[in-house]
Amino acid sequence: MAVTIRHVQPSDYARVIQHVNEWWGGREMAPMLPRLFFIHFESTSFVADREDGTLAGFLIGFLSQTDPETAYVHFIGVAPDERGSGLGRELYEHFFETAQRSGRTLVRCVTAPENADSLAFHDALGFEQEAVAENYDGAGASRVLLAKRLV
Amino acid sequence: MAVTIRHVQPSDYARVIQHVNEWWGGREMAPMLPRLFFIHFESTSFVADREDGTLAGFLIGFLSQTDPETAYVHFIGVAPDERGSGLGRELYEHFFETAQRSGRTLVRCVTAPENADSLAFHDALGFEQEAVAENYDGAGASRVLLAKRLV
Repeated sequence: MAVTIRHVQPSDYARVIQHVNEWWGGREMAPMLPRLFFIHFESTSFVADREDGTLAGFLIGFLSQTDPETAYVHFIGVAPDERGSGLGRELYEHFFETAQRSGRTLVRCVTAPENADSLAFHDALGFEQEAVAENYDGAGASRVLLAKRLV
Repeated sequence: MAVTIRHVQPSDYARVIQHVNEWWGGREMAPMLPRLFFIHFESTSFVADREDGTLAGFLIGFLSQTDPETAYVHFIGVAPDERGSGLGRELYEHFFETAQRSGRTLVRCVTAPENADSLAFHDALGFEQEAVAENYDGAGASRVLLAKRLV
């Protein structure tokens, strides 16, 4: 089924948030994704819709307001039955292009060390693992810090 | 004890996150405040330090990337024993000034309908309640939408 990628709208929030914990293998992810990202970071965030109107994937990112060279991806999710289709790469390519048009040369994100699929996916996209930081997002929430230079 | 307000640094994350649930009366707030806000939104986020190095309060905000007129406050917290001192207002004044210098004319935030202290505080600061939105931040997470025009 054909999938269309477009910028996120605030009205996509309910469509996305209902899938988040399930798509992350049951981890409690939803609290980390408040609606503000769907309202205030539309230009750097995307959803992928199937022809039947269901959600195939999404990416939530923003331009760093501290570092004018950096763009950051907070969430990227692909429906379990769309994985391996190249949709995750396509979502990232939309983000890379938008980031570059805004003058950004570096994309950063973090992922959980136990999320082997995410680590492999980001490796295939050209992200490098810079560090593993313990208690990065609070006690017990370690993160792998990933970075990719845009060329 | 004298309190100094300055821009947030990534190294403030651990200092802040350890207090968040307690300062919100035991609500599970910490997952809504990942470290990314301390890294990428330094210029619009502030911490208030006491002379003895302990944390008196903090404000985490950003400039909307969707709406060039809007700035948004994601978290504001004041230590229980500093409440009523005017520190919350001072933190907001730092934010208002920064937002105005960036050309913003509207400040938005949301709060939980059950958080009466927050509603009274924002009312005293001149915020207006625009709506109460059910399931705003996911199932069961209703929010009062607040807005204040900068003049």
